[in-house]
Amino acid sequence: MTTAQKSSKRGKMVNGFDPANADNLDTRTRAFVERRSRLLGPAYRLFYSNPVEFSRANGVFMYDSEGNEYLDAYNNVVSVGHCHPHVNAAIARQMDVMCTHTRYMQDGILDFAEMLLATFEPEIEHVMFTCTGSEANDLALRMAKHHTGNQGIIVTSEAYHGNSELTAGFSPSMGENSPLGTWVRRVPAPDTYRVDTADMGEWLAARVQEQIDDLHRRGQGLAAFVADTLFTSDGIFPQNANMLKPVIDVVHNAGGVFVADEVQCGFARTGTHMWGYQRHGVVPDIVSLGKPMGNGYPVAGIAIRPEVAARFGHDMRYFNTFGGNTVAMAAAKATLEVIQNEGLQANCNRVGSVMLEGLRDIAARHSGIGDVRGTGLYMGVEMVKDPETKVPDSPRALALVNKMREQRILISATAFNANVLKIRPHLTFSEDNATRFLTGFEDALKAVS
Amino acid sequence: MTTAQKSSKRGKMVNGFDPANADNLDTRTRAFVERRSRLLGPAYRLFYSNPVEFSRANGVFMYDSEGNEYLDAYNNVVSVGHCHPHVNAAIARQMDVMCTHTRYMQDGILDFAEMLLATFEPEIEHVMFTCTGSEANDLALRMAKHHTGNQGIIVTSEAYHGNSELTAGFSPSMGENSPLGTWVRRVPAPDTYRVDTADMGEWLAARVQEQIDDLHRRGQGLAAFVADTLFTSDGIFPQNANMLKPVIDVVHNAGGVFVADEVQCGFARTGTHMWGYQRHGVVPDIVSLGKPMGNGYPVAGIAIRPEVAARFGHDMRYFNTFGGNTVAMAAAKATLEVIQNEGLQANCNRVGSVMLEGLRDIAARHSGIGDVRGTGLYMGVEMVKDPETKVPDSPRALALVNKMREQRILISATAFNANVLKIRPHLTFSEDNATRFLTGFEDALKAVS
Repeated sequence: MTTAQKSSKRGKMVNGFDPANADNLDTRTRAFVERRSRLLGPAYRLFYSNPVEFSRANGVFMYDSEGNEYLDAYNNVVSVGHCHPHVNAAIARQMDVMCTHTRYMQDGILDFAEMLLATFEPEIEHVMFTCTGSEANDLALRMAKHHTGNQGIIVTSEAYHGNSELTAGFSPSMGENSPLGTWVRRVPAPDTYRVDTADMGEWLAARVQEQIDDLHRRGQGLAAFVADTLFTSDGIFPQNANMLKPVIDVVHNAGGVFVADEVQCGFARTGTHMWGYQRHGVVPDIVSLGKPMGNGYPVAGIAIRPEVAARFGHDMRYFNTFGGNTVAMAAAKATLEVIQNEGLQANCNRVGSVMLEGLRDIAARHSGIGDVRGTGLYMGVEMVKDPETKVPDSPRALALVNKMREQRILISATAFNANVLKIRPHLTFSEDNATRFLTGFEDALKAVS
Repeated sequence: MTTAQKSSKRGKMVNGFDPANADNLDTRTRAFVERRSRLLGPAYRLFYSNPVEFSRANGVFMYDSEGNEYLDAYNNVVSVGHCHPHVNAAIARQMDVMCTHTRYMQDGILDFAEMLLATFEPEIEHVMFTCTGSEANDLALRMAKHHTGNQGIIVTSEAYHGNSELTAGFSPSMGENSPLGTWVRRVPAPDTYRVDTADMGEWLAARVQEQIDDLHRRGQGLAAFVADTLFTSDGIFPQNANMLKPVIDVVHNAGGVFVADEVQCGFARTGTHMWGYQRHGVVPDIVSLGKPMGNGYPVAGIAIRPEVAARFGHDMRYFNTFGGNTVAMAAAKATLEVIQNEGLQANCNRVGSVMLEGLRDIAARHSGIGDVRGTGLYMGVEMVKDPETKVPDSPRALALVNKMREQRILISATAFNANVLKIRPHLTFSEDNATRFLTGFEDALKAVS
């Protein structure tokens, strides 16, 4: 087996550095990569063909070890900006008062729960706290299975929902070496660029029904349909507002629940709503929350309709050592305060429109961009070899990601073929930042043809 | 069904507040409990028959909302003491510099990895980082299954290893309503108080072999034997130093791996060693780390022999959004520095001996204590109705936990019958703290007879 073949069989990772190419690195980076492999083992991946080291960060900027400034249009975890002073002060303050868990009475967790629940529809009455989005989705599915008595889980074909055994088992984007669960079924994403249908909702509902029928054929029912409602790992498909209702009807008719995974699209990023599912006019049974919830502090959770939580809550206890602890709650509360008080949802809407318009202008001036999609500050730019054939241009997408890194702008790529540029800046991105981004992007396009 | 019967069928929880008894609470506490149920749903549990609210904490003390001081002999997460200034300063400092993930190059994660690996035997070469002990055990078992190609997992009969679907599936202490995994098998704990054997290691090895044989009988092999080497949820059995070797031999002969769950006993708590498994003179294949690792900051991980990580690392990528982030690494490094620089392992040994001796003196003066067990600052006091019959005295153990809370000393209980007092103070506990604890414990014993 050649090195290239071996390499291609490694676990799938978009924009991952391949150690087989370490010879191309400078001495310092190569030494770092070797030290890292020795200490952390083979499962970790670095970004970029030429990995980058950052030393500090502030707002929408990161700085490498030589002090060079990078415009960050990728890191959605620190979503209100790197090192936000309001959030950091809240964490530091609470750390010095007390860091303790949920088995003592605390007003802080209840105050934040109330504030968070106010952002959901009244049908969603409870929240529970975990540390990571993986834990949130794992808990959501444990609950869905316990509530329905069924095992079946339906996801889109390139979904990503977590790294626990259960959630990795319904994350086909982990690649063919990562085992899917026995009762996991896939449906194609609502790909507005490639699927030719007059009614995407009915089309997707029919695909979901096929998989429900297959589950029943094997003597198994449906526990849940789980979707990131922007379908970000499938390629980012935000145009299907109000598309999900017929899908959820099919799911409910089969006795399953709908889990809206808001780890990517939640907390105001879509610009028009606080939660991605709200663009579809549906109310999920369980909502899972993650990445941006504490602006980098590990905090996540689920919001639930009480009827879905009842049996699980009666039969089982849930305790998460750090989940919902006093400091995590301070971090999450401060982050939500920033989103609400600084008007970041409106900012996403406004700056997102500027970005989207700018990207579409660029697409009209250059070949190779098949589609530009986005809502708020979540955008996808699909690279194709030819607009007629729509053959994915994965090499050019990857080259663009790396060229942008050279130009000190951070983005990545997504979709099965990794040919969709993933642009996901901080919620605080300004029009000036957008201009700098668009200029840099057009330069990169010209350089990588 | 009566209220009492309904109540008994709820998810199992040692020292859990039962909402059926809310009528006994004062107005303020009852209002809190009701608000909490409404917002957080039915799966959460509070401690104590009369739940307690804490407002601040410092060192080994917690303070309730009226300013009363409680001696904390329970909370092992903030293991170097509540609000430790060195740890909090390190977290605050790094938060203001940069909070980012493992896909950019960072020296911090490698420096800490090196520092941590130096505490293990040379066979253990890699570390990987998660946010919680549940995630660590979930990853450990995903890796064990991928490495061995087998599904079988053997644990002790009252083990607790996590709250994800996979780890809850091998945590029988969650109670009979919580489903165990199809391929999970249980062995009795090495109960030095009740099991009559000349060689506990051979005895346990034989039990493990029986379960391996049962797995083979069903066409399935062994992936892993997982043990908290103090068997803390089974009742705390620390005396079996050097007992595990024949058990691990049986596990290895069957092609399985040994996962040492150090979430409870690791990071110097046993007094004699940094890691619990080291008391047994064995080297695990995977070590999982959790709770005390960041003194309250959510950080956890696994340490691995490279041969066990190889196939998983080749076939799959592992990414944990917050796991190993720059702030988590600063927290973990500062915590380990405190343990090493303040000589806390030696302190555990010294103060633990004082505590154990004091508890044994008290046991000799009072009836109802069947056994006193411990190493370092992890102690169990087993309450029985009669030393001859050894019938567990669960009601008295629970009454003692609640009496201690009234006297403002925090402990809990463990074991299948919840009749073993769990005493687990901060690693910084002083002899003065020990004296106060012992006096309070004897007072409580006299009061609850």
